[in-house]
Amino acid sequence: MTNEADEAPAVPAARGPDGRGEPVVGMVGAGQLARMTCQAAIGLGIGFRVLAADAGESAAQVCAGASIGDYRSSADLLAFAAGCDVVTFDHEQVPGPQLAALQRAGSTVRPEPGALHFAQDKRAMRERLAALGIACPRFATVAGDGDITRFAAAHGWPVVLKAVSGGYDGRGVWVCATASEAAEVATRARARGLQLIAEEYVAFERELAALVARSPSGQGAAYPIVQTVQRDGICHEVLVPAPGLSLGRQAEAQRLALTIAAELGVTGLLAVELFETAAGLLVNELAMRPHNCGHWTIEGSRTSQFEQHLRAVLDLPLGATGLAGRHAVMVNVLGGDDPDLHDRLIHVLAADPGVKVHLYGKVVRPGRKVGHVTVIGADIAQIGDRARRAASYLSLGTEQP
Amino acid sequence: MTNEADEAPAVPAARGPDGRGEPVVGMVGAGQLARMTCQAAIGLGIGFRVLAADAGESAAQVCAGASIGDYRSSADLLAFAAGCDVVTFDHEQVPGPQLAALQRAGSTVRPEPGALHFAQDKRAMRERLAALGIACPRFATVAGDGDITRFAAAHGWPVVLKAVSGGYDGRGVWVCATASEAAEVATRARARGLQLIAEEYVAFERELAALVARSPSGQGAAYPIVQTVQRDGICHEVLVPAPGLSLGRQAEAQRLALTIAAELGVTGLLAVELFETAAGLLVNELAMRPHNCGHWTIEGSRTSQFEQHLRAVLDLPLGATGLAGRHAVMVNVLGGDDPDLHDRLIHVLAADPGVKVHLYGKVVRPGRKVGHVTVIGADIAQIGDRARRAASYLSLGTEQP
Repeated sequence: MTNEADEAPAVPAARGPDGRGEPVVGMVGAGQLARMTCQAAIGLGIGFRVLAADAGESAAQVCAGASIGDYRSSADLLAFAAGCDVVTFDHEQVPGPQLAALQRAGSTVRPEPGALHFAQDKRAMRERLAALGIACPRFATVAGDGDITRFAAAHGWPVVLKAVSGGYDGRGVWVCATASEAAEVATRARARGLQLIAEEYVAFERELAALVARSPSGQGAAYPIVQTVQRDGICHEVLVPAPGLSLGRQAEAQRLALTIAAELGVTGLLAVELFETAAGLLVNELAMRPHNCGHWTIEGSRTSQFEQHLRAVLDLPLGATGLAGRHAVMVNVLGGDDPDLHDRLIHVLAADPGVKVHLYGKVVRPGRKVGHVTVIGADIAQIGDRARRAASYLSLGTEQP
Repeated sequence: MTNEADEAPAVPAARGPDGRGEPVVGMVGAGQLARMTCQAAIGLGIGFRVLAADAGESAAQVCAGASIGDYRSSADLLAFAAGCDVVTFDHEQVPGPQLAALQRAGSTVRPEPGALHFAQDKRAMRERLAALGIACPRFATVAGDGDITRFAAAHGWPVVLKAVSGGYDGRGVWVCATASEAAEVATRARARGLQLIAEEYVAFERELAALVARSPSGQGAAYPIVQTVQRDGICHEVLVPAPGLSLGRQAEAQRLALTIAAELGVTGLLAVELFETAAGLLVNELAMRPHNCGHWTIEGSRTSQFEQHLRAVLDLPLGATGLAGRHAVMVNVLGGDDPDLHDRLIHVLAADPGVKVHLYGKVVRPGRKVGHVTVIGADIAQIGDRARRAASYLSLGTEQP
């Protein structure tokens, strides 16, 4: 017995596929986040399974442990979980009752449903963060149109209406300039059975993101704070570290995310999307899984966010989060008009041997996230140009200057 | 049409699994080299298959495209190749006639059998390098015991006897101090049907390795020259770049490997194991696949050797080969007495959050390569200590000081 043994967190009961002791992590969902987590699992030598809706999904194409099933079905979830030591997620869409059923059946679910709830329900998240005294945009529950106009009377137009659950990548968020626009959104939402909250429109200076991990035994680790550039609610690029951010503000943002992770009982990753305003930082959104703001970590940090998530949900000690180069820039590749990414890849690789291209195996549709590129280097302006040029060439399906 | 299009090499006829244009690479063999190539293929978004002897092999455990078959069977190879745009290898054991059958059937085999022959047949390799004027240990064909004693009379004892084909990791190599020892080895070899060559015993100062890639259209790329530390013929650690190597000697070693790759018509990776002696560099061994001397590239270079091999065999432009940090040290994890690596992993991760551990999913047997660790940093002595400590803890199954 060594000294470390007394302090180190315990690995959950190991029941590897062939009795060799490797724990098995099952990820519900098989998009690109699961695909990149699969790469990390291979490196760590742990078992990894995904629950995919169909065999063509991004992670299902590449993962030896892909099961086909419906994440809304308790039967499918229970069958999937039976082969896993820990169940985790590449999205927030598994309904609460199904999560509860998994727990009742004895599955280890991380993040735990009680924490995940705050990533699934924006109203619950706002109320909980407000109770913790964490600065957020002002918000109100919307029961009827009167709630929106009352909120606007207090805080002005535009008003941001958000679906309480189910939104991502800008879906489920509407910026309404007038009462009639808001009423129209509310009517459509009611027709679809969506609950809404109203939030003040924040005239932010820029958007930042804090990515942290927390393990069941309480260890926490924070990545450098990044700047994210979003268009139409979709992340386009990530600059690492956030340019010009003071050390004090960096520490504040990391502390904020670690506090939220601890207070909400998060296990695994927590991404906190932040508005930087003249008055300080406001929390915009939370996600409890690998996140687009952390794709740069694959090359840019000693421990990728995907490996970190696996380590955290398995209660393994967390890895170093430092920046491996001086700067990193990640730019998303969005689908364009040309369905054949590989035909274009050759030009990008020829033009810049130092750019790192990740393709997700997804069918190209305009605006869909189909890959990303990362460049690491000393000059953030120059690596930003290189990353944008590569992503743009892959994205657009049109000739670049 | 862009300017690059006129110069860029062509991707082979793409017939991705679902018509989306991704090429499919098939790797014969499913050890850790195929496993790590699988990780790289996931990132590049290409199709990847392995031909495994059984479903428990290292790469077969994790690769969605694993077929079970015998690499010595033409029927199995042809069936495997039918689903692949390019066939490549994680070992040198596929017999020549089977390779020829693949080519006759229209498969694209890379490296081509004519080049691979020089990695499969040490006598052919020595003769070819000698004809090219490339410095090697002196050698002779062994037809009978008289050839060995004549060779020893000219070059002294000890004499190194090597199996012409089939050896790796020190197997198939015997250092013989006396004529009777050599005669005994030769008798055993004849009984097993092995052909031998005799080589002079080189009193080298240290061992180096040059890793290069070459694409069918002739592009070449060289990684930094590394020092390898071998024990009993097995690579134990790799220091990057080779400490204290002059710029001139680095360039000489890179040029040597690029020359061999071009002269032998290699496509894909070529690893050249070198002896550094007072008189200069001598070529020890060649391998035409990802190689243990290049595992450090996963974290230590902009392009891992596994991605580079895929790019080369697909005739995609090669990636940047520079060192991403100041130094890298890779140490192999060899199996010890404790079969449960995961039970030990937790201590290694707790002790050093910055060490990168790779486990291969292999059953632990004493002395077997079951993983490796890499540390990147500014101080090679310090990162060497960290990597050795981590690997030793995982390797030994005994307590470390």
